[in-house]
Amino acid sequence: MAQESSQITPRYLTGDKAGLQEFLAKFDVFLFDCDGVLWSGDHLFPGTVDTLELLRNNGKQVVFVTNNSTKSRADYRKKLESLGIPSTVEEIFSSSYSSSIYISRILQLPENKRKVYVIGETGIEQELRSENVPFIGGTDPAYRRDVTPDDYKKIAAGDESIIDPEVGVVLVGLDFHMNYLKMALAYHYIRRGAVFLATNIDSTLPSSGSLFPGAGSMSAPLIMMLNKEPIALGKPSQAMMDSIEGKFKFDRSRACMVGDRANTDIRFGLEGKLGGTLGVLTGVSSREDFVSGDVRPHAYLDKLSDLLGSE
Amino acid sequence: MAQESSQITPRYLTGDKAGLQEFLAKFDVFLFDCDGVLWSGDHLFPGTVDTLELLRNNGKQVVFVTNNSTKSRADYRKKLESLGIPSTVEEIFSSSYSSSIYISRILQLPENKRKVYVIGETGIEQELRSENVPFIGGTDPAYRRDVTPDDYKKIAAGDESIIDPEVGVVLVGLDFHMNYLKMALAYHYIRRGAVFLATNIDSTLPSSGSLFPGAGSMSAPLIMMLNKEPIALGKPSQAMMDSIEGKFKFDRSRACMVGDRANTDIRFGLEGKLGGTLGVLTGVSSREDFVSGDVRPHAYLDKLSDLLGSE
Repeated sequence: MAQESSQITPRYLTGDKAGLQEFLAKFDVFLFDCDGVLWSGDHLFPGTVDTLELLRNNGKQVVFVTNNSTKSRADYRKKLESLGIPSTVEEIFSSSYSSSIYISRILQLPENKRKVYVIGETGIEQELRSENVPFIGGTDPAYRRDVTPDDYKKIAAGDESIIDPEVGVVLVGLDFHMNYLKMALAYHYIRRGAVFLATNIDSTLPSSGSLFPGAGSMSAPLIMMLNKEPIALGKPSQAMMDSIEGKFKFDRSRACMVGDRANTDIRFGLEGKLGGTLGVLTGVSSREDFVSGDVRPHAYLDKLSDLLGSE
Repeated sequence: MAQESSQITPRYLTGDKAGLQEFLAKFDVFLFDCDGVLWSGDHLFPGTVDTLELLRNNGKQVVFVTNNSTKSRADYRKKLESLGIPSTVEEIFSSSYSSSIYISRILQLPENKRKVYVIGETGIEQELRSENVPFIGGTDPAYRRDVTPDDYKKIAAGDESIIDPEVGVVLVGLDFHMNYLKMALAYHYIRRGAVFLATNIDSTLPSSGSLFPGAGSMSAPLIMMLNKEPIALGKPSQAMMDSIEGKFKFDRSRACMVGDRANTDIRFGLEGKLGGTLGVLTGVSSREDFVSGDVRPHAYLDKLSDLLGSE
């Protein structure tokens, strides 16, 4: 797909009124990456709210797609609200939600292997609960402690006081309380046959204008120990696109993915065979990335609010 | 080197008195991997002590080479003693010691960049102290805590209350108290230019008859985030062989590496161009690995104590 996309000559639409109108008319649904597109860190880009309003007023479906697994959709809606962006929970699609749907509706788990061992924060737990998926781990304080000599023996022996025989899935998301015990348990559950899932595999997390360990950094030790990749449910995994389509029932040819990262957002839209992809220059990728990189969007803008130039 | 070694037809020496005598006569120095060769877990193999005594009585230098970074040489000597193996600190070469020597004697650090940020346990700290290398992190309780919103801001800004400008090296070993804060700090120090070192990169640690996260699992998130490999100081890295040679000043052609793992121990000896390598079948690698694998020892035994058959 990357090879196909390298044939695209992205159209630069900033200030091109006719071009913008033509582009917008092609789509009924806009999927938005958020950080780097609508805002950066805690800073809302000027014109974001007006641009979303323009789209909604023109009958476009807006979907906020985020790899952030630490928040539930409800939490994320609050975050959007705190930045001044009106939204509904139904418009939000997070990797924690995508993972929960994948587990509850797509994975066919045996009757006695339906529990999920979670590495992650409350967002994952809330979404698993919303799909009635039983889980252990996560924010449970019982797992936020040092490993003991007794743990090694019990884990190695599969002692049921620490290894739950009903665990059939390990779901790894960003966990600010990652520790040795959690890592050891995840490793042993997967060795015993549990499915290895990751909410997303972004190695870093943007924060305070810099980068910090992301969800992929939680999976990295397990990948190394097991010599096995997880099924990843966040962008650019098409498992996430399938979940979004399953929920919104849209026509892919009439949908456009908007993002700042060629290798995740734009790739996500291209591999999902959406009708369009739109890059913005307010985040990670540069003009050069979009124009001559391996993965190129159909069109790009200096900033999202340049869409207002269609009026 | 692996290709060269695949030309070797390993000699099976168990029960071959003349062959054993001939083999032993070739070497003045024997480097020993420990777990899987001298003992397994807490179980000392019968004949280990007698075999070491035989070698010493015949004027052979014995060196215990371990990738275990959590112990200092003094700690490791105590472990040998607790298993009933007499030894001296001088006979022990651990990856924590190897790392300390590499930092103090080989790395040329600028005057104001000589501090080491440590991820690891007390063994590393003791060996750094023995080489007068200043360090922060490690077992300091100040780093054994949850990350706070304030941390993100200060780390991103390079605030000197949390980012020490004198850190020029990040040394990553096995840390049973690994957490998000430590990972974030290591990442930022390396991004700011610190040298990325690992005591060793074994992904797993044998314990209680099973496997648990090893030192490599501490480096894995950093490797993923930085897209950069550390300089590893444990077997099979030749940096460790150079350190051993620097200390013992032996003739490599008169030295033999003894181990149970083809891909680490035997490779270590072959790539170090030692005169000999000796595999034992009491650990990870099988007869088939030794006889027809990619990395083959010069000779192999059912068990180390078969060397006693030379008498």
